[in-house]
Amino acid sequence: MRERPTITIFGGTGDLTFRKLLPALYNRMLSGFAPEGQNIIIIGRRDYTDETYRERAREWVRKFARLPYRDETFDTFAESIHYFQMDFTDPTTYPLLESYLDAQGIKTCVFYFAVAPRFFGTITDGLFQIGHAHGSKVILEKPFGETLEDAHALNKRLEEVFTPENIYRIDHYLGKEMVRNIQTIRFTNPIFADAWDARHIDCIQISAMEDVGVETRGGYYDHSGAIRDMVQNHLFQILSILAMERPAAFTPEAMHTEQLKVLRALRLPDPENISDSMVLGQYAGYREEPNVSPESKTPTYAALKLFVDNERWKDMPFYIRTGKKLGRREMEVAVVFRTPSPEVPPAVLLIKFQPTEGVYLQFNIKRPGEFDEIMPATMDFCQSCSIANRINTPEAYERLLTACFHDERSWFSQWDQIETSWKFVDALEQAYGDRQPDSYMPDTVGPKESDELLAVAGHSWFVEPETKF
Amino acid sequence: MRERPTITIFGGTGDLTFRKLLPALYNRMLSGFAPEGQNIIIIGRRDYTDETYRERAREWVRKFARLPYRDETFDTFAESIHYFQMDFTDPTTYPLLESYLDAQGIKTCVFYFAVAPRFFGTITDGLFQIGHAHGSKVILEKPFGETLEDAHALNKRLEEVFTPENIYRIDHYLGKEMVRNIQTIRFTNPIFADAWDARHIDCIQISAMEDVGVETRGGYYDHSGAIRDMVQNHLFQILSILAMERPAAFTPEAMHTEQLKVLRALRLPDPENISDSMVLGQYAGYREEPNVSPESKTPTYAALKLFVDNERWKDMPFYIRTGKKLGRREMEVAVVFRTPSPEVPPAVLLIKFQPTEGVYLQFNIKRPGEFDEIMPATMDFCQSCSIANRINTPEAYERLLTACFHDERSWFSQWDQIETSWKFVDALEQAYGDRQPDSYMPDTVGPKESDELLAVAGHSWFVEPETKF
Repeated sequence: MRERPTITIFGGTGDLTFRKLLPALYNRMLSGFAPEGQNIIIIGRRDYTDETYRERAREWVRKFARLPYRDETFDTFAESIHYFQMDFTDPTTYPLLESYLDAQGIKTCVFYFAVAPRFFGTITDGLFQIGHAHGSKVILEKPFGETLEDAHALNKRLEEVFTPENIYRIDHYLGKEMVRNIQTIRFTNPIFADAWDARHIDCIQISAMEDVGVETRGGYYDHSGAIRDMVQNHLFQILSILAMERPAAFTPEAMHTEQLKVLRALRLPDPENISDSMVLGQYAGYREEPNVSPESKTPTYAALKLFVDNERWKDMPFYIRTGKKLGRREMEVAVVFRTPSPEVPPAVLLIKFQPTEGVYLQFNIKRPGEFDEIMPATMDFCQSCSIANRINTPEAYERLLTACFHDERSWFSQWDQIETSWKFVDALEQAYGDRQPDSYMPDTVGPKESDELLAVAGHSWFVEPETKF
Repeated sequence: MRERPTITIFGGTGDLTFRKLLPALYNRMLSGFAPEGQNIIIIGRRDYTDETYRERAREWVRKFARLPYRDETFDTFAESIHYFQMDFTDPTTYPLLESYLDAQGIKTCVFYFAVAPRFFGTITDGLFQIGHAHGSKVILEKPFGETLEDAHALNKRLEEVFTPENIYRIDHYLGKEMVRNIQTIRFTNPIFADAWDARHIDCIQISAMEDVGVETRGGYYDHSGAIRDMVQNHLFQILSILAMERPAAFTPEAMHTEQLKVLRALRLPDPENISDSMVLGQYAGYREEPNVSPESKTPTYAALKLFVDNERWKDMPFYIRTGKKLGRREMEVAVVFRTPSPEVPPAVLLIKFQPTEGVYLQFNIKRPGEFDEIMPATMDFCQSCSIANRINTPEAYERLLTACFHDERSWFSQWDQIETSWKFVDALEQAYGDRQPDSYMPDTVGPKESDELLAVAGHSWFVEPETKF
């Protein structure tokens, strides 16, 4: 008898499961991507039966599913959900889980660790103990440890227990449609592919701006900050996809090889002059947020000027910025091409991830009129604007779950990438030292120092013009 | 006393003057481009006074001026218009013109020959005889002669009388906003400039499709045909701007040098296999048109596959097509870039001249959804869509008149270009011989043979997709 494909979620009564995982699993079923006979085991400490849990899940799916909610459809879906009550922090409870799985003939699962990282070790040990780790896959949420040392130890244990190829580290930005789109735009359009280097590009800017503050996550965030929360993982991932050489093939291995080369080629800024390369900021009022230290020096904003030391990107700056309370929720990559002369505006390719997904291109045409003046033609392709595309575009978690089931590892972070990024940002933070980040007012674009970071090279943060004609 | 700047129009009661020149001169005045104290002398055979001519002119300006017509504005404009009645085909009348000009202290003019080309010689001789040719400029309408031999003799005489640098041969396509725009798009955008060669481009297509037939111009057209009416002048001009090397400077001389090099590098098709390079067509019913010979073999459609034999364009085809009764009025250039693999659609840059002016770009993005499929993103920038731009965009004749007054010769055809083009199309027509062009039905896109012209190289005429999403 073939084993039923099973996903087992630790932290099944948490926000992530209700808001993201269950709706994603529901959408997957509706789109026909759920494996035949799929089994969803929910593990939580609270007191639910299959039935009461399913009713609770119904409300979340109704509210958050991308695809239309229908009672009958949900009923079918709900039949695959089973609730198993246990305290996963208690090693003595694992034999009960073993009996439960064995009774259903389940040997291997996809285990989803939708729990705080401090529990990763305990759960790993428990699953090892009951013999259900070997051959199973494990999906982990970021952050992966709190320091490089932590992360290293945890990773070692996970690799021993699950084997490296069965560990799926989620970086949910990798599931975003437009991040995948970077590859397509770069490599299938020779007009861009052949201009994708420092000879043709003046600078590349990656912006991930949030309008919200830390909200209820002050406790976590105050230990992490903008660099570790966003730069080290998401933005470095995006940078490495933007900057990598064309992989020998579009296989996960080949792509990771190339991405890793980029991260290893990142030039470490001079620690003596760190402010030439990095601006950190903290919004006014941050230290009054719940669970934030009143003396906190945690940055809620980071802007970096980076160089990839290889032939392709010789001396061309990559600018990265991210932060909270920036008055907008906007994530985009701007590729600013070189201009033939200072009077000519640059051509700009803007790949937009949030709030809308799309592509914006600006290049020069002749200004209508008597003289040979130049003006930019601005063209916008909004990928998420049509309802059909919005509905057809699976959310990050749907893609990631599907990818995990299909062993598509290119959608996940690899340990050597995480380690390399981590070493880099550790060095940055050390160079910055114990200074207080620059203050900025909420609902502004961050500390003014970040404009100066670009201005010295004659650059400025790209702003998509609002007026079209 | 400084001489009043004077434009003298032969053929002042013809269609061109009423529909195009007077409205253009009016618009020029309103936009502030008319020279101080400008004087407009209208020469015609008919019996007008200054006053009656001005009233007639008022109606045409009211109807055809781009800028708003107002009585008082026109009155001011009309004061500069003077009517001089003469039969310019009669050499004995020129001394009267001499007295008329002398009485006003006018030595040199811009002479506009808005008459049939067969009168160019007589007028030239007349102006030479009264000593008003030397130092004057002359603007000539196409067609410039009917054969290379004709054209050659006429040109010789004009150059003797007016000197070469004072002859302005109108190719009104050169005045079109978007033709000028080709230069801007090519040379100020490195993403295009650096991809502007056969290594990056698969083919370039120039289409000038008319919906109308020959209408009232059957007599002229039947002696000319699609090749001489459109290809030899307009389309070769556009081709040479598209294909030229970057000129040393954007001066008329430097540009002409480069354009001429392109025309001289055009590979002459093998006369034995002319149908591999040229398709001629004639719409069904053409021979029944007024003033068209019932045995006519004049092509009303032409499609050409051309090669520019130089390093940049090595073996890359330029496709040209033009014709009448093609069911659409559409003029555009499509630059089809190479694709990295046959499954990937090409990126296409479309520069549109008619019916709207604008730029369209298509390149590949990832299809929204579960898989890494490719789809084209289509972006459209309509330059003539905004009212402001339409009003701000001077018409071809306005630009040409302004350019002539400012000695900007790059807006006009040069004799060596005309001669080179003419030799080329003479050879084409000779190779085609006495065959009957392929027939095509009105309101279709022309003879099916023109699709085969492209299909052998795996190409097809680019069609802008109608549906966007």
